[in-house]
Amino acid sequence: MTNMNELEHRYAEIQDLRHGLNILGWDQQVMMPQGGATARAHTLATLTGLAHQKITDPQLRKLVRSLSRKKDLPRARRRTVELVKREVDKASAVPSSLAKDMAHAESQGLESWQAAREAKDFKRFASDLSRMVDLKREVARLTAGRGRLYDALLDDFEPGATVKQIDPLLGELKAVTVPLLESVVASRKKVDLRPFVGRFDVSAQESFARAVALSMGIDPDRSRMDRSTHPFCGGTGPNDVRMTARYDQKDTRGGLFGVIHEAGHGLYEQGLDARRLRTPLGGAISMAIHESQSRLWENNVARSRPFWKHWLPKLRRAHPQLKGVPLDAVWAAANVMKPSMIRVEADELTYNLHIILRYEIERDLIEGQLEVKELPDRWNAAMHDSLGITPRHDSEGVLQDIHWSMGLFGYFPTYSIGNLYAAQFMEAARKGIRGLDGKIAAGNMAPLRAWLQDKIHRHDQLYTAAQTVKRVTGKPLGIDAFRTYITKKVRTLYG
Amino acid sequence: MTNMNELEHRYAEIQDLRHGLNILGWDQQVMMPQGGATARAHTLATLTGLAHQKITDPQLRKLVRSLSRKKDLPRARRRTVELVKREVDKASAVPSSLAKDMAHAESQGLESWQAAREAKDFKRFASDLSRMVDLKREVARLTAGRGRLYDALLDDFEPGATVKQIDPLLGELKAVTVPLLESVVASRKKVDLRPFVGRFDVSAQESFARAVALSMGIDPDRSRMDRSTHPFCGGTGPNDVRMTARYDQKDTRGGLFGVIHEAGHGLYEQGLDARRLRTPLGGAISMAIHESQSRLWENNVARSRPFWKHWLPKLRRAHPQLKGVPLDAVWAAANVMKPSMIRVEADELTYNLHIILRYEIERDLIEGQLEVKELPDRWNAAMHDSLGITPRHDSEGVLQDIHWSMGLFGYFPTYSIGNLYAAQFMEAARKGIRGLDGKIAAGNMAPLRAWLQDKIHRHDQLYTAAQTVKRVTGKPLGIDAFRTYITKKVRTLYG
Repeated sequence: MTNMNELEHRYAEIQDLRHGLNILGWDQQVMMPQGGATARAHTLATLTGLAHQKITDPQLRKLVRSLSRKKDLPRARRRTVELVKREVDKASAVPSSLAKDMAHAESQGLESWQAAREAKDFKRFASDLSRMVDLKREVARLTAGRGRLYDALLDDFEPGATVKQIDPLLGELKAVTVPLLESVVASRKKVDLRPFVGRFDVSAQESFARAVALSMGIDPDRSRMDRSTHPFCGGTGPNDVRMTARYDQKDTRGGLFGVIHEAGHGLYEQGLDARRLRTPLGGAISMAIHESQSRLWENNVARSRPFWKHWLPKLRRAHPQLKGVPLDAVWAAANVMKPSMIRVEADELTYNLHIILRYEIERDLIEGQLEVKELPDRWNAAMHDSLGITPRHDSEGVLQDIHWSMGLFGYFPTYSIGNLYAAQFMEAARKGIRGLDGKIAAGNMAPLRAWLQDKIHRHDQLYTAAQTVKRVTGKPLGIDAFRTYITKKVRTLYG
Repeated sequence: MTNMNELEHRYAEIQDLRHGLNILGWDQQVMMPQGGATARAHTLATLTGLAHQKITDPQLRKLVRSLSRKKDLPRARRRTVELVKREVDKASAVPSSLAKDMAHAESQGLESWQAAREAKDFKRFASDLSRMVDLKREVARLTAGRGRLYDALLDDFEPGATVKQIDPLLGELKAVTVPLLESVVASRKKVDLRPFVGRFDVSAQESFARAVALSMGIDPDRSRMDRSTHPFCGGTGPNDVRMTARYDQKDTRGGLFGVIHEAGHGLYEQGLDARRLRTPLGGAISMAIHESQSRLWENNVARSRPFWKHWLPKLRRAHPQLKGVPLDAVWAAANVMKPSMIRVEADELTYNLHIILRYEIERDLIEGQLEVKELPDRWNAAMHDSLGITPRHDSEGVLQDIHWSMGLFGYFPTYSIGNLYAAQFMEAARKGIRGLDGKIAAGNMAPLRAWLQDKIHRHDQLYTAAQTVKRVTGKPLGIDAFRTYITKKVRTLYG
């Protein structure tokens, strides 16, 4: 067996373990009876431990070291070695005692965050969060190399991204967004929400959302769609994609746009090359690229006027009380914009302000510019500063997100970077597909799906995020496409 | 860490892997989209390989050897060591090349069995089956020690069982059954099947079957019940039991008695001691003891007259067309007896004849008394001999069961041994629970479930099957209880 063969053979076993973990994790959230929790926790811990053991196996490290020295490898093989090296280095940098402390701090953190949120009192969460921040700083210190501390955490979700790149990007995004939001508020326009808010049969909501997902190209022979409390897209794509949804009788937006969002993730998974599934090249490029696929379908497509031109008659059939409701009313209701407290309920315009606020806070926390006890004041001031509103208590402020309690630092910015990628990809798709809006207005989403698969999905991790955006759009990531897109939408709907 | 602690720690990891495999296997049959098959096969193979690696780890064998030498261990610890030793010895006896050949022969065998059954032509299956028999004989030779070849295979499903014990038991069972069947045939009694055969709403069938399962004591917080093509009971009991069912609009018997059967298995799993879940003592004693629990509920309880006294009014409400159908008609229809070709459709009386036929054939195959090419003739002659009917072609004869194609030799007899255990346990329960029939007739199944849990389930594998039947019924396994039970039923219904 050559070194490369052995590396791929070892990696395939690690992938098998991860695929098992994916399905067991899905089962835990969607199917498992509550009694199964204890046994499942043991099984997940053991499989995770085995995967970690295998990725940190000295023999694998030796293979990586030897292959990294070869200068004449073809591109795909060089990238393979680079990807495995990245994983091996990351996994090996953290000693098992620190990994155990992290796992403990996560379950502890989750518990006290839940209690604090219940009590609307940040102080109950503060000491566990401090401990978590200390541990994450330690992890960052061990993996950062010569880079900044926060970069090391960011890199877990968005390989190659840095504060140096993100700071100006999100700064510009904020500078574009704030005046647009001011113009929305100043317009004093009241949008009628009745196309989506009222009383809507849940099984009719489900049928409609599934029909949209199928029209996007979700393949029912290679996927499932179930219900769960927190919608997500999991599975072991491309041939076993598991999406979930949640429907609310009183408001159809969460269910419908949630399904379209998860189906966007699902199309990415489904569009990967199945032959690479067990190889280091297999899988999505980054969290932000993944998010770009879900946001592109959720916002750029499904909140567009052409989309509703096709789907409104079907929506009216699903919910007969919508008989006679005009296209522009539905389009406006799908794009209502206003400052609000809760990130997950925020609209396309204000959403990024919620993210930027979190990014700046977690960056400063990790880099020692901010102390945990200062968090609520900093949060509330930032909310007032960028959105013009102030939380009444910590649970609608600093305690609203689960991320930090689980040690997820560096995750938040990928949401906004995903929005930027989405706009830039969509702009390129519009150039690449003649009459795209007309096709969408005719209910034909196949060309867009095929374009995304051809340009992005089918390459798995052969290219980095930076290489991908350059290849697909001809430009590095920037805010121009998003600015053009969102400015036009705001002007049209709130001008 | 003491040797015992280390042994238990290592075993717990193996159990975690098996629990993962159980859920992934359930998912494969019940939830997985068809596209997921390839990735799943890899994941299952890798996890199975890891579990095998861990059970054959030289360090574990060393621990077992050292602990086996200790003479002063308390009973539970002695049994723990004995159980692990058994597994280690079995797993270590088969070299990995042979295990690989077996795995290959299984997938090959399954494929050609399916093709042969489709074509109703045993010859298409014969050479793959011969190969399988050769491999199983080789496995048996490596694990048999001083015992008989077939005993080594039997022991995989029914630890401790031997041809020497089973031959006379099944011989007596046949001797009791054949004349009873002759009397049934001679009675020329025609049973009206309309209580179960006709047109029955499937969701009403499902609600009724679930109500029965709940009344048996199935805990919905620790179990699921779904649909699948081949009903089974899986999961990682006791707190995560997964049962499946299949319903037929034209015949409610398969659905209803199938659910009760799987719920009987489910109650066993649910009744195990959760604290032992990851230990060598955790789990069911044997296949036959497991089958005794499903058969006891399916036959001894749910095909009894008292059971229908309580449930008939509810059945009538579920299926209004049964209005006015009398209790004795339902009871008779639930117990129709007649010779038939297909084992899985056979009644309580003839079922054992199907099993005995298979047992005698596979015993002779493994021990070299019978050649594969002689199988169809031997099968057809035995069918004529014991049931008085002859298959029209191989697919309703020797090709009807999947077992041999997958290398499952030694499995069949556990079905009939399970029936014998069931009758013997039920006889003991009737002595142990005052007025049991009256309780069942009043819809109160809790005392029977509690008795079974107390006497059998909660001890996990602390006792062997032989010790268990002695402890619970005061006697070794025999056919007396079954003879009394079935003779009375046949006399009453066909006398």
